[in-house]
Amino acid sequence: MSFKRNTLLLALMGGLLVNQSVTAAPAAVPLDAKASDPHVLGLMQGIPPAADKVVNFSNFLRFPFTRWSFSHIREVVPTVQVSRGDGPVSALPRAERDDIDSLSFKPIGRDSTMTWEQSLAANYTDGIVVLHRGKLVYERYFGALKPEGQHIAFSVTKSFIGTLAAMLVAEGTLDENALVTRYVPELKDSAYGNATVRQVMDMTTSIEYSEDYADPTAGVWEYGRAGHLIPRPAGYSGATSLYAYLQKLKAEGEHGQTFAYKTVNSDALAWVVQRATGKTFPELVQERIWSKLGAEQDAYVMIDEVGTGFAGGGFNAGLRDMARFGEAMRLNGRFNGQQIIPEAVVADIRKGGDQSKFAKAGYNTLPGWSYRNMWWVANNDHQVFTARGIHGQTIYVDPKAEMVIARFASYPVASNAQIDPTSLPAYTALANLLMTKDQ
Amino acid sequence: MSFKRNTLLLALMGGLLVNQSVTAAPAAVPLDAKASDPHVLGLMQGIPPAADKVVNFSNFLRFPFTRWSFSHIREVVPTVQVSRGDGPVSALPRAERDDIDSLSFKPIGRDSTMTWEQSLAANYTDGIVVLHRGKLVYERYFGALKPEGQHIAFSVTKSFIGTLAAMLVAEGTLDENALVTRYVPELKDSAYGNATVRQVMDMTTSIEYSEDYADPTAGVWEYGRAGHLIPRPAGYSGATSLYAYLQKLKAEGEHGQTFAYKTVNSDALAWVVQRATGKTFPELVQERIWSKLGAEQDAYVMIDEVGTGFAGGGFNAGLRDMARFGEAMRLNGRFNGQQIIPEAVVADIRKGGDQSKFAKAGYNTLPGWSYRNMWWVANNDHQVFTARGIHGQTIYVDPKAEMVIARFASYPVASNAQIDPTSLPAYTALANLLMTKDQ
Repeated sequence: MSFKRNTLLLALMGGLLVNQSVTAAPAAVPLDAKASDPHVLGLMQGIPPAADKVVNFSNFLRFPFTRWSFSHIREVVPTVQVSRGDGPVSALPRAERDDIDSLSFKPIGRDSTMTWEQSLAANYTDGIVVLHRGKLVYERYFGALKPEGQHIAFSVTKSFIGTLAAMLVAEGTLDENALVTRYVPELKDSAYGNATVRQVMDMTTSIEYSEDYADPTAGVWEYGRAGHLIPRPAGYSGATSLYAYLQKLKAEGEHGQTFAYKTVNSDALAWVVQRATGKTFPELVQERIWSKLGAEQDAYVMIDEVGTGFAGGGFNAGLRDMARFGEAMRLNGRFNGQQIIPEAVVADIRKGGDQSKFAKAGYNTLPGWSYRNMWWVANNDHQVFTARGIHGQTIYVDPKAEMVIARFASYPVASNAQIDPTSLPAYTALANLLMTKDQ
Repeated sequence: MSFKRNTLLLALMGGLLVNQSVTAAPAAVPLDAKASDPHVLGLMQGIPPAADKVVNFSNFLRFPFTRWSFSHIREVVPTVQVSRGDGPVSALPRAERDDIDSLSFKPIGRDSTMTWEQSLAANYTDGIVVLHRGKLVYERYFGALKPEGQHIAFSVTKSFIGTLAAMLVAEGTLDENALVTRYVPELKDSAYGNATVRQVMDMTTSIEYSEDYADPTAGVWEYGRAGHLIPRPAGYSGATSLYAYLQKLKAEGEHGQTFAYKTVNSDALAWVVQRATGKTFPELVQERIWSKLGAEQDAYVMIDEVGTGFAGGGFNAGLRDMARFGEAMRLNGRFNGQQIIPEAVVADIRKGGDQSKFAKAGYNTLPGWSYRNMWWVANNDHQVFTARGIHGQTIYVDPKAEMVIARFASYPVASNAQIDPTSLPAYTALANLLMTKDQ
């Protein structure tokens, strides 16, 4: 990427939240899922593609280019492999149902109903897989995603580092009550200087850093530039690695009081976990999770310029493999003939975090929820717990319904608050269908 | 990568050919294979690595950083996957011998002998596999390469696009006698305007472009900057894609007279092949070769900023999989239970190209050799033919000895003329050993 592109990009940075057509003039209404399909737009088609159809580092986070890029991250930025290992692929027996597309539900805050099939388009779904009792009952792909492709999981990545950390706590390798600085002395002058590992694991730290994607000056963008996960402007003089940025963070209050969702916590945790084990985040995912799932495909992780894996949101994988991870969590950690995640770790996640601390964060679509080990926990009668990423990435586990949903999406706006209303009630409706009606 | 790094890099560009220690002061003598081992140097070790141990886009083509980067290309630049597919791995039965390391041979131009084992260090071998009658008789890894890792193949990549082109000619999809412009009209004002597909396939085009890596102003560096395979200086105003650069190339004589090894030909051929098929180079490798070999691992290809796969040198793969491809070529295209490459295509390669045209190019270590379909053909009594890449990458097929050698290396200098003297006679000695002595 040339520095000229950087300059251009700076102007476009806020564009992540602005729906623009592929042509120069911004569209008043975002292209819908069908109209923004990369095949319809001709993105990256032709040998070589025409200049206005190219998706690369200069535009890959801007809708509608995201419809292509989210399924092609490794073609845009450096990545590190997470090997599936050399064992056999674990079976996902098929028992596909034909009564799901027409399933009707009422979106949050609306009076009219919508069908399951309509919800997929409404959410710019790139792919969705539903397992019921371990069988694949539903599977669809749209846009640029294929069954054999990998899609960015964004913050679903956090649930991997959270799970790994909880596994290390359970086995005694990591002390959740210790200060972060026991493992990472370099963080002593930062906001993390007086935080415990557990506070980081549950995101109850208090840090001067904004996760507001709509604000171009938000910390999350600074962080992206530090990690070179997004382009830097000409003359950039900020941090040049993820961990250099973490060291600059300042506290904005007392830790432990409130849930505050901040991506930096996941990487601070990854730094801790890596120091505790001497292994990198991608290596740990590979050794402890991915190679044991019987995954179909290798996965991969975005890295910064010093090779650090982006634990806050850089994981990419195949959709059915994400479903396998969800199924392992549903089965209390036991999957593919082995106990991959200790039962106590899954139980600790399912138990959830402090609901009063979560409530202070004001998530309107998630009443009564909490956050534990970097999982979102519904604390409802279905004992639902989920991994969630911006633009609609999901692993949704409903133990009571014996259902797991894995979804990749490229919703134009980085806001799950806009996606939840047409997703969460659809998932509940599907759970009820699966529980009450065999096919 | 920041534009400041680009500036720095410009100064270092020639450094590819200069042996430098990892510290600031250039060493008078290059570090040897053992001293430049990335583990010894501490490259990319630590979480995160220390600043002077980081390998990234700013230094990844400079020795000794190459000792790490050549096994980690995807962690430095964007790449596209070449899937192994979902079939079973093809067997490479083991019959390892213990009499190879001590094998003695006389390097070209020297009076004293050297052992096989010594030759591996002399050539900065990162990995080497020898198959004899399809069995794995020898396998070693050094430096940053592991059996489950992928290494850059550099110009061995050319033999993939050459083989694919020959396959398309054999099946009638591509006319070797047609002008390049029949498939790629965009090249009509370039040196390729009056070249035939066959001239490009055999590199007998005459093009104003230098492959001299020792010359910082050589075309090969301009080409690398165009493809963003190497950093660009601040204020860069040259071509910004591989194919944009090809369109600027001028003729420097009459085509068809002399073999002239120029990387641009491989990408011109890839453009032709992709237009003839409507598929990308990585897709074609995947569909027609990689997914049929029973490869152990996915491979991948470096791409430029518009997503074009670098057919001149961007292929990366596991070493045993490279040996599988060599074995398929040894067996006249039949491997893993199927005819992967038509027998006539392999025969056409083995027959070789025009030796008189090759001789004019003045390769002192390759007397009597020729070049056909982007393979190097020895035209000797063993009917040896090889794929060759700078810094010591090799697939060496000796049909008479029923031997295939696959080697990855990170020799400090981009010159096979310096590597051949301790490689080619070693391979001949090993062939003779395998032919005369069972173990």
